[in-house]
Amino acid sequence: MNYAIVKFIIGKVLYFEAAFMMLPCVTAIIYQEESGWAFFFTALLCVLIGAVLTRKSPKNSVFYVKEGFVTVALSWIVMSLMGGIPFLIGGVMTNPVDALFETVSGFTTTGASILTDVEIVPKCMLMWRSFTHWIGGMGVLVFLLSFMHTHGSGSHMNLMKAESPGPSVGKLMPTVQSTAKVLYFIYIFMTILEILFLLLGGMPLFDTLTITFGTAGTGGFGIKNDSIAGYSPYLQVVVTVFMILFGINFNAYFLILCRKFRQSFKMEEVRCYLGIILVTTAFITFNIRNIYDTFGDALRHAAFQVGSIITTTGYATTDFNNWPEASRTILVLLMFVGACAGSTGGGIKVSRFVILIKTIKKELHTLLHPRSVRKLKMDGHTLEHEVVRATNVFLIAYVLVFSFSVLLVGFDNFDMITNFTAVASALNNIGPGLELVGPTQNFGLFSNGAKLVLTFDMLAGRLELFPMLLLFVRDTWKRY
Amino acid sequence: MNYAIVKFIIGKVLYFEAAFMMLPCVTAIIYQEESGWAFFFTALLCVLIGAVLTRKSPKNSVFYVKEGFVTVALSWIVMSLMGGIPFLIGGVMTNPVDALFETVSGFTTTGASILTDVEIVPKCMLMWRSFTHWIGGMGVLVFLLSFMHTHGSGSHMNLMKAESPGPSVGKLMPTVQSTAKVLYFIYIFMTILEILFLLLGGMPLFDTLTITFGTAGTGGFGIKNDSIAGYSPYLQVVVTVFMILFGINFNAYFLILCRKFRQSFKMEEVRCYLGIILVTTAFITFNIRNIYDTFGDALRHAAFQVGSIITTTGYATTDFNNWPEASRTILVLLMFVGACAGSTGGGIKVSRFVILIKTIKKELHTLLHPRSVRKLKMDGHTLEHEVVRATNVFLIAYVLVFSFSVLLVGFDNFDMITNFTAVASALNNIGPGLELVGPTQNFGLFSNGAKLVLTFDMLAGRLELFPMLLLFVRDTWKRY
Repeated sequence: MNYAIVKFIIGKVLYFEAAFMMLPCVTAIIYQEESGWAFFFTALLCVLIGAVLTRKSPKNSVFYVKEGFVTVALSWIVMSLMGGIPFLIGGVMTNPVDALFETVSGFTTTGASILTDVEIVPKCMLMWRSFTHWIGGMGVLVFLLSFMHTHGSGSHMNLMKAESPGPSVGKLMPTVQSTAKVLYFIYIFMTILEILFLLLGGMPLFDTLTITFGTAGTGGFGIKNDSIAGYSPYLQVVVTVFMILFGINFNAYFLILCRKFRQSFKMEEVRCYLGIILVTTAFITFNIRNIYDTFGDALRHAAFQVGSIITTTGYATTDFNNWPEASRTILVLLMFVGACAGSTGGGIKVSRFVILIKTIKKELHTLLHPRSVRKLKMDGHTLEHEVVRATNVFLIAYVLVFSFSVLLVGFDNFDMITNFTAVASALNNIGPGLELVGPTQNFGLFSNGAKLVLTFDMLAGRLELFPMLLLFVRDTWKRY
Repeated sequence: MNYAIVKFIIGKVLYFEAAFMMLPCVTAIIYQEESGWAFFFTALLCVLIGAVLTRKSPKNSVFYVKEGFVTVALSWIVMSLMGGIPFLIGGVMTNPVDALFETVSGFTTTGASILTDVEIVPKCMLMWRSFTHWIGGMGVLVFLLSFMHTHGSGSHMNLMKAESPGPSVGKLMPTVQSTAKVLYFIYIFMTILEILFLLLGGMPLFDTLTITFGTAGTGGFGIKNDSIAGYSPYLQVVVTVFMILFGINFNAYFLILCRKFRQSFKMEEVRCYLGIILVTTAFITFNIRNIYDTFGDALRHAAFQVGSIITTTGYATTDFNNWPEASRTILVLLMFVGACAGSTGGGIKVSRFVILIKTIKKELHTLLHPRSVRKLKMDGHTLEHEVVRATNVFLIAYVLVFSFSVLLVGFDNFDMITNFTAVASALNNIGPGLELVGPTQNFGLFSNGAKLVLTFDMLAGRLELFPMLLLFVRDTWKRY
């Protein structure tokens, strides 16, 4: 392990975090909230620690996959530790584990909260919670990359690999820096678009910003106790549409930017993703039609909840915990499907499912025609063996981490649906689950042990497992 | 598809089924039950259809993997269809779907029943139910193989591959026939041993036979409404020990027969399997110690239920649906682990989990040392790439079949734990689940549609997915 460079990058990350904290500071000034000082002091602390860590530029520029993974995992952990301090200073929470849980939930765009009443929380705190979603959605290291000069040959690609969701990292542009810039351009453009649409609907500016941050990062922290239920149907529809848009593979937008419209609309993953949304929304609308006054209401709630769960955002307009079992089952299955790769959404990802289903089809084909050699294809290109292998390994790690987490959380002795959906919610970065962690509930009931397991799951889910698993291997920490 | 040979083998299978039905016939004669005629007539029907199917010896001896898989899948379906007829004739059931469900549950050694009161069922029917476990445990085609002369070059290996559980088929002896004979010898020897131990404990002969059949096949159909709860602690302990023994990879016994004791005791899968049993039994004993009078009782019930679930037998000595959530969670996770490969048990199999965990370890190792080439090893030998690949593909197919089944069963609108554990129970060939399909309940509540889904799952689980999936591919049915 090249400790020097890892330390250096984490130092840089802390500088950025200090800068990010200026937003809640400004919010506090506007709303004249004293608790804004908490952010000021924490930002100062970040700068101080950052200065210590970046004191000397690393001489050794060795930066392998290992360094990439560890840097990303540790950066996220450090970011979350520091990001939780204002909650403690500001008196919103007293338990450090809660503060860590809430911040990890923010950065990983999970949106699971331990707060019972968010409406009494100062606005600067709410702004920070929602802003962590926006930062975490695209990834802070990808952000860093678009500014930083290269350290060692493979450093950028290795960092991006570790932080980007999905089975393969598409380098849209010749260099990682320019790719990161294009991604951030799309991200910011769409964020502004949603803000405009929400303002048009008469939503107050503070609500607009926080809810847009939560949508863009597919996070889901609400600023009202009833999440999005209190807003007008128009606003709910806008959020629905943007949740779904942020769950689409950003490559599709890039292709549109390059005027390659046909290629963009032909992406298998995106078609499959939209197909799933259509079919499940139709079924659930039918299934819940008697619960709501009009067919339109049922459709709106079905579309919102489907969009919210498949993109792993986690907002809610209604308590879907009370829906019929068939609809609940579909939502739980959608939790695992997740959004497209290369979006800000979590879950296993639609493209992985497409690859997995193709693998099974190929297996059946091979059983029938043992001598034929058929390659897996996606979007007209042959899928590289490495991508297929990585997808398989991901599924294995996923199943093992999931089972082990359910086992550990089970020691809290809550009912099985609560435990199962809490882990599903954390590992897929969704937010709400069912029963005791349903959309009107929160995660405060769990013991500190269970909260730490779920915190690990959120990070593991956001960073696609291996960066977090690597931290537990002794060899990782060997000095060169 | 070589229809001629498939038809021919299914015909032979029906002859054997007719022979198997002589046991309930004899039982009926002893207990002077009129419903015994049902078996006599059905056996006659089997012989008739068998005669038609085997009328002409197949000329074309082509027999690829495809033929093996389809033959096995169709044989099991035909066997189950015919095996369910006596229940209908005898008036024990009126719904043909129920009869099919019950027989598939028997042959696949699941032990999930749709009967609410088994104590009013005629003894010949109970004998047949339990006997189907014993037949299905080792596999009827493996049985056939040890008698049959070869048809086409690869026919035997391809049939055995399709019917044997686990990631790789160990050919213990140079030919498939002799391997099948050795396996059946061990199977029969251990069956007799259990019968003797149970008789020693004062159990009536009828009970001894049926319960031994259920243990040996890791089936789990009970002949009492309270399963095994009414028997003495000694008898419960005997059943516990034999369940665990029948869940061990039969290769271990073969090695003992060859006096290779050290090799036998060093088998990684077996050690891991026994380790899991020890640890989970210890934890559950501790977790449930307050529910039972003495520590000994808690230990006995914990060991019985752990042994019953991990071996996928499904007998019960107590209603574990009422256990604390942590213990229930462990049992649900054990449902998926399953017994050893090459045993009569179901589930994903311990060896697959060992391979999956090794795959993840190797992945982490490769991330740390990208240039090192490390092969996966098991029991000191390098794991062939094909075995690892097959394990990955199995997991993918398993996850997909499981999710899709939960979705379909969910349309019945029962609670999620019922649906989830019903599918887990069927696909892993266990028997009881939790809540509405808990150990004191039955599967009669489901609609015909859900019952058919679960029937498919039981067959898919027993035949390791692909033979059943292949039936749904159009190419399979193309004539040569």
